Amino acid sequence: AFLLEMVDILTNYVKKTFDRSTKVLDFHHPHQLLEGMEGFNLELSDQPESLEQILVDCRDTLKYGVRTGHPRFFNQLSSGLDIIGLAGEWLTSTANTNMFTYEIAPVFVLMEQLTLKKMREMIGWPDGEGDGIFSPGGAISNMYSVMIARYKYFPEVKTKGMSAAPRLVLFTSEHSHYSIKKAGAALGFGTENVILLSTDERGRVIPADLEAKIIDAKQKGYVPLFVNATAGSTVYGAFDPINEIADICEKYNLWLHVDGAWGGGLLMSRKHRHKLNGVERANSVTWNPHKMMGVPLQCSAILVREKGILAGCNSMCAGYLFQPDKQYDVTYDTGDKAIQCGRHVDIFKFWLMWKAKGTIGFEQHIDKCLDLSQYLYNKIKNREGYEMVFDGVPQHTNVCFWYIPPSLRGMPAGEERREKLHRVAPKIKAMMMESGTTMVGYQPQGNKVNFFRMVVSNPAATQSDIDFLIDEIERMARDL
Amino acid sequence: AFLLEMVDILTNYVKKTFDRSTKVLDFHHPHQLLEGMEGFNLELSDQPESLEQILVDCRDTLKYGVRTGHPRFFNQLSSGLDIIGLAGEWLTSTANTNMFTYEIAPVFVLMEQLTLKKMREMIGWPDGEGDGIFSPGGAISNMYSVMIARYKYFPEVKTKGMSAAPRLVLFTSEHSHYSIKKAGAALGFGTENVILLSTDERGRVIPADLEAKIIDAKQKGYVPLFVNATAGSTVYGAFDPINEIADICEKYNLWLHVDGAWGGGLLMSRKHRHKLNGVERANSVTWNPHKMMGVPLQCSAILVREKGILAGCNSMCAGYLFQPDKQYDVTYDTGDKAIQCGRHVDIFKFWLMWKAKGTIGFEQHIDKCLDLSQYLYNKIKNREGYEMVFDGVPQHTNVCFWYIPPSLRGMPAGEERREKLHRVAPKIKAMMMESGTTMVGYQPQGNKVNFFRMVVSNPAATQSDIDFLIDEIERMARDL
Repeated sequence: AFLLEMVDILTNYVKKTFDRSTKVLDFHHPHQLLEGMEGFNLELSDQPESLEQILVDCRDTLKYGVRTGHPRFFNQLSSGLDIIGLAGEWLTSTANTNMFTYEIAPVFVLMEQLTLKKMREMIGWPDGEGDGIFSPGGAISNMYSVMIARYKYFPEVKTKGMSAAPRLVLFTSEHSHYSIKKAGAALGFGTENVILLSTDERGRVIPADLEAKIIDAKQKGYVPLFVNATAGSTVYGAFDPINEIADICEKYNLWLHVDGAWGGGLLMSRKHRHKLNGVERANSVTWNPHKMMGVPLQCSAILVREKGILAGCNSMCAGYLFQPDKQYDVTYDTGDKAIQCGRHVDIFKFWLMWKAKGTIGFEQHIDKCLDLSQYLYNKIKNREGYEMVFDGVPQHTNVCFWYIPPSLRGMPAGEERREKLHRVAPKIKAMMMESGTTMVGYQPQGNKVNFFRMVVSNPAATQSDIDFLIDEIERMARDL
Repeated sequence: AFLLEMVDILTNYVKKTFDRSTKVLDFHHPHQLLEGMEGFNLELSDQPESLEQILVDCRDTLKYGVRTGHPRFFNQLSSGLDIIGLAGEWLTSTANTNMFTYEIAPVFVLMEQLTLKKMREMIGWPDGEGDGIFSPGGAISNMYSVMIARYKYFPEVKTKGMSAAPRLVLFTSEHSHYSIKKAGAALGFGTENVILLSTDERGRVIPADLEAKIIDAKQKGYVPLFVNATAGSTVYGAFDPINEIADICEKYNLWLHVDGAWGGGLLMSRKHRHKLNGVERANSVTWNPHKMMGVPLQCSAILVREKGILAGCNSMCAGYLFQPDKQYDVTYDTGDKAIQCGRHVDIFKFWLMWKAKGTIGFEQHIDKCLDLSQYLYNKIKNREGYEMVFDGVPQHTNVCFWYIPPSLRGMPAGEERREKLHRVAPKIKAMMMESGTTMVGYQPQGNKVNFFRMVVSNPAATQSDIDFLIDEIERMARDL
C-alpha cells in the first residue's frame, strides 16, 4: 500500500515533467532549504516518522528538486526521462543485487556481456571481441583506460608501484574532460605528467602538436604512454581526428584511448558515426549511454580491445567471493575485473531500452537531437545580439554562443566589454533559475569569457523549446 | 499505463520475496540462459520489441534472478529488501539527477551533507566536523582513504606523481578486505608495498606485529604511511583493536583508516558499538549502510576527520561545471571532491530509511541480527557434525563453521580428511543453489579448507530460517 502511494506520487511527477506549464525548478538557496521550507525538515532524528510524513517528505524532495527530464532542461549532457529506462531502474532496485558474481546476478551478468559485445561490434572491433565493464561514470571509465595502458606496458607497476616504471607521460587535449588529469593525479602519474595538446579553433586536437610533444617528452627522457582522443568534447562537442592520432600512436607505440563519454552515442547513427572514424583503431573506448542515449543515470562503459587485460590489471582473486570450485563456469564471475568490489547493476535499464527501441530507435533519437541543435545554430548564427564561439556547424549537439545584451552592442572590443560580457551569462542563468522556466549551462574556456553552452540530449525537446530558450534569454537580458 | 503494469510485476515480486514457500533462486547455467530459456531471448537487435514483450522480458529477468531479499538468502553481507529504501530508490531513479552540483541536486546535496555529519557524530568526531562523500562501494571508499593519506603527507604527488615521494608502505591485516591491496595497485604503490599484518586466531590484528613491521620497513628505508584497521572483517567478522592500533599510529605519525564497511553499522547500537572503541581516533572511516543497515545497493560513505582535505586531494576546478560566479553559495557544489565526475544519488534511500526508522530503528535491526547469529552459534557449537572455525562468540554476525558429513566423522586428521572436507561446502552449496531453497557463502582462509560463512543482515530473517538452514545442510550432506 505504501509502495502504491509512492508510485502515485512518482507517476504524477513524471506526467508533470513532460508538461511545459510546469516549472523546471523551484529555486531556493541552501540556507533556505536548511531552515526548513514549509515544514520540510531535512534533519534526521532518533525516533521514527510516520509513513504519512514519509510520503510528505518524498513530495517535498521532488518539489524542491530539478526536473532533469523537462523538455526545457538543457543544463547537462544527461537529460530526459525515458519511461522504459525508468521502469528498468525500478526493476533493478527491486532485484537489489550486485554485479560481482554470476551466482547472485546471473541474468544481469549475461546481459552485460552481450551488451558490451554489441557495443564493441559498433566500435568495429573484429567479431566484437575484447573486454569491458560498466563503471560508475565516465571519469572512472577513463581512469580504467589509463590503468590498463600502464598494465599493458609496465605490468610490474601492479606489484612494485610506479617506482618500477620510468617517468610516464599522458597526452590529452586542452579541451578534454578533466577526468584524464584526475586519473593522472589519483594513479600516481601526477598532473604535470598529463600533457595538454593544442587544438584548432573548433576545439579539435592538432595532430602535429601531439607528435611534437611526444618528441619533446622523449628528448627530456620521459616515456610517452597514453593518448586520449576525445569524441565529443564537453564544451564544444568537438571530435578529435582519431585516424591521424592513431597513426601517431602506432608510430610511437602508444596506447590510444577514445573518450566517447559524450560522443560515443553517435556510433548508433549511420548519418553521424563518421565523426568517430578510426575509433576501431583505439585500444580502449569510454562510452556513456546515460548521456547521448538517454539512459537513466548512471550507465557508462569502458571497452577494451585486448581480451583478458582488464582482469590482469585488476584481479586480486579474493577467495571469499571468487571461489574457483563453484558448480558453474566461473569465468562469468566478472567482479575481479573491477576496481570496485560490489558493483551496482547499471546494465538492465540500458538493455531494456535497447530491446524496446532497437538500434534504430537510438539512431532516431540521436539524429533528432542533432537536427534540433542544427535548428538552433541556424536560428542564431546571424541573429542580432548573438556571437558564435566558433564558426561552422557544430559537430555534436553543443552550440556555444554569447548573447550580447542591447547595452553592450555598440561597445568597442576591449577589456571593459570583455568584463561586462563575462557577467552576462551568469546573470541570465541566475534569472532563469529563479524564474524556473529553463536551464542552460555556461562557462569560460581558455581566454574566452563566459558563454552559453547549449546541448540537446532530451528526446522530449522540440523546436518550440529551442524557440522558448531564445525568447527567455532575450527577455531576461533586456535590462542588463 | 506501462509503468503501472511494471509496478504490478514488481509488487508481486516483493510479496513473493517475503513468502518462504517461494524459492530463493531458480538456478540455470550460463549456457542455458544464453540459449534462451522458454523464449527468454537476451540478444539485442535493430528493431524494437512490443511493450507486451518488454513486460515479459521483465518477468523473466526476475524469474531467473536471485531473491536477495528472501529471508533464507544468507549469501552476502548485503541482503534484505527494505520497502522504504526501495521506495526511496524508485524516487531517486525518477528524479534522475546527478550529485555534482547543488544546481541540479539541491535537496540531495543537502541531505548528503546532513547525513554525513550525523555519521561523523556517531563516529565521535567533535561536533561531527570533518568531511566525506558517498562513493560507489566500500572498495572505492577505501581507495579514497589511501589517496587522502598520501595527499596529507605528500601533497606534491598530486602534481608530480609517485616519483616525488619515497617508497611508501601501507599496512593492513591478512584478514582485511582485498580492496586495500587493489587500491595499492591502482594508485601506484604496488601490492608488494601493502604489508599484511598477522592476526590472532579470531582474525584480529596483533598490534605488536604492526609495530614490528613498521620498524622493519623503516629499517629497510621505506616510509610507512597508512594503517588500515578493519571493523568487521569480511569472513570472520573480526574487529581489530582500534585503540591499540591508534597508539602505534600516533607514535609513528601514520594515517589511521578504519574500514567499517561491514562493521560500521554497529555504531548505531548502544549494545555493540564498543566493538569500534577508538574509531574516533581514526583519520578516515569507511562505512557502508548498504551492508549491515539494510539500505539498498549501493550506499557507501568515506568519512574524513580533517575538513577540506578531500577537495584538496581531488579538485581539478573544471570551469564548465563548477563556475565560481553562480548566484548561490558554491561551497555546496561538492562534485570536485570526488574522483568521479557524475555521481549517482546514493543518499536519498538512506536518508528516507533513517527518517522512517529513526536511529533506534537501525539499532533494533542490528541488535536483532546479532542476536540471530548468536542463536545460530549456540545451536551448532556443540552439535554433532559441526566444527567452529574459531572459538568463542562471534563479534559480528559472521558464524564460520565446517559441517562434517557422517562419512568423514570417524576419519583421522590428515591430508585425506582435509581434501575431502575441502570439497564438502562447495558440494552442499551447489545442491542448495540447484534446489533453490537457501544460499550461504563458503571459502577457504589461509590454511583452513573451505568452510561456511554464515552472515545475517536481513531483517526478515527469523530463528526458523536459521533452523531451516541447518536442516538443509544436514539433509543435503547426508549422502556425501
